[in-house]
Amino acid sequence: MLRFGISMSLDGYVAGPDQSVDNPLGVGGEDLHQWVFPLEVWRAPHGLEGGEVNESTPVVQAMLAHVGATLMGRNMFGGHPGPWDAKRPWNGWWGDTPPFHHPVFVLTHHARPPLKMKGGTTFTFVTGGIEAALDAARQAAGDGDVWLGGGAKAAQQYLGAGLVDEMTISLVPVLLGAGERLFEGIGDDLHGLALVRTVAAPNVTHLIFARP
Amino acid sequence: MLRFGISMSLDGYVAGPDQSVDNPLGVGGEDLHQWVFPLEVWRAPHGLEGGEVNESTPVVQAMLAHVGATLMGRNMFGGHPGPWDAKRPWNGWWGDTPPFHHPVFVLTHHARPPLKMKGGTTFTFVTGGIEAALDAARQAAGDGDVWLGGGAKAAQQYLGAGLVDEMTISLVPVLLGAGERLFEGIGDDLHGLALVRTVAAPNVTHLIFARP
Repeated sequence: MLRFGISMSLDGYVAGPDQSVDNPLGVGGEDLHQWVFPLEVWRAPHGLEGGEVNESTPVVQAMLAHVGATLMGRNMFGGHPGPWDAKRPWNGWWGDTPPFHHPVFVLTHHARPPLKMKGGTTFTFVTGGIEAALDAARQAAGDGDVWLGGGAKAAQQYLGAGLVDEMTISLVPVLLGAGERLFEGIGDDLHGLALVRTVAAPNVTHLIFARP
Repeated sequence: MLRFGISMSLDGYVAGPDQSVDNPLGVGGEDLHQWVFPLEVWRAPHGLEGGEVNESTPVVQAMLAHVGATLMGRNMFGGHPGPWDAKRPWNGWWGDTPPFHHPVFVLTHHARPPLKMKGGTTFTFVTGGIEAALDAARQAAGDGDVWLGGGAKAAQQYLGAGLVDEMTISLVPVLLGAGERLFEGIGDDLHGLALVRTVAAPNVTHLIFARP
């Protein structure tokens, strides 16, 4: 099963404008994630103590459960766009011990050997397209699910191809006014996904879509 | 108090593409309103018997309560765009007895005498801009609230000017893929409006914003 979750502003943006290595979420993009940072369920895997428990907690727990592999786009993995630059090596945003602890597959146009990190995370770079990456992630996940981490362009491709089985839109009641929209260029077809559950939580409303 | 409510798709559209006299909500636009048509609270004021009662009922009741006057844009009032055409008279979508039963103010660039309908509804056409229309509506409403009915362009103007005191976004879990977006060209400023309540209901999630 391919599952996907993303935070989206009321005006449909999942990243602010002017994304860069210094500002990976774009201007104002961090506002989309303020609901998650105070949560214990987010802090613990990042090595931080304490934190809140609220209506978002079981939603985040369900997102993280049974994930055997993660898929993401090159933009989410980060670094300067284009070919990998040996003079400016980029191993992701997450430091030596990324919080995944399972295989991660990165969609890219530029081949690169697998990158083994501490704590069980290996980044594998897939140049064969979205279906090849999903196949590889499914095989690596075994009995677990595959989690699609984003960003917007990777999500648009998997949604548009009808490959997403479950989707959680965490709708944040702010406007960004500009940036990258999730639902752009994928038409009017949710490919069988339908709203199955709504969870109202502090500073966010989770809309959970699945195949009913 | 100026209150506003609108149905919006997951991808931010409040009307589909190709709006016309024959298809006032645009292609696919009727999907935005499927949640309200079965409700008794919607059917009764339209002279229809029966209907459902669900979690949307109190939300609709609250929308309709204490309204002393309604504001709307020319596009919502309808008819062919441009100057009023005596050869194709247009008195709105709602028949001889519109369901408002109070004064309605229509924003337009084209002057026209007030239009008195049955059942207490009079359409007054205001050419002096959004503030003049709001002043007139407030005066007519007396102790009641002013309801901003839409459409998108009128709502954008009142939201952008910071004149809206309460807003209910009824988020419908469908994609339209094209059409008229509510949050377009009004930047990243909700002008003091914040999410105060979320109501999950069949086929819709109501997001209620107010000044906390």
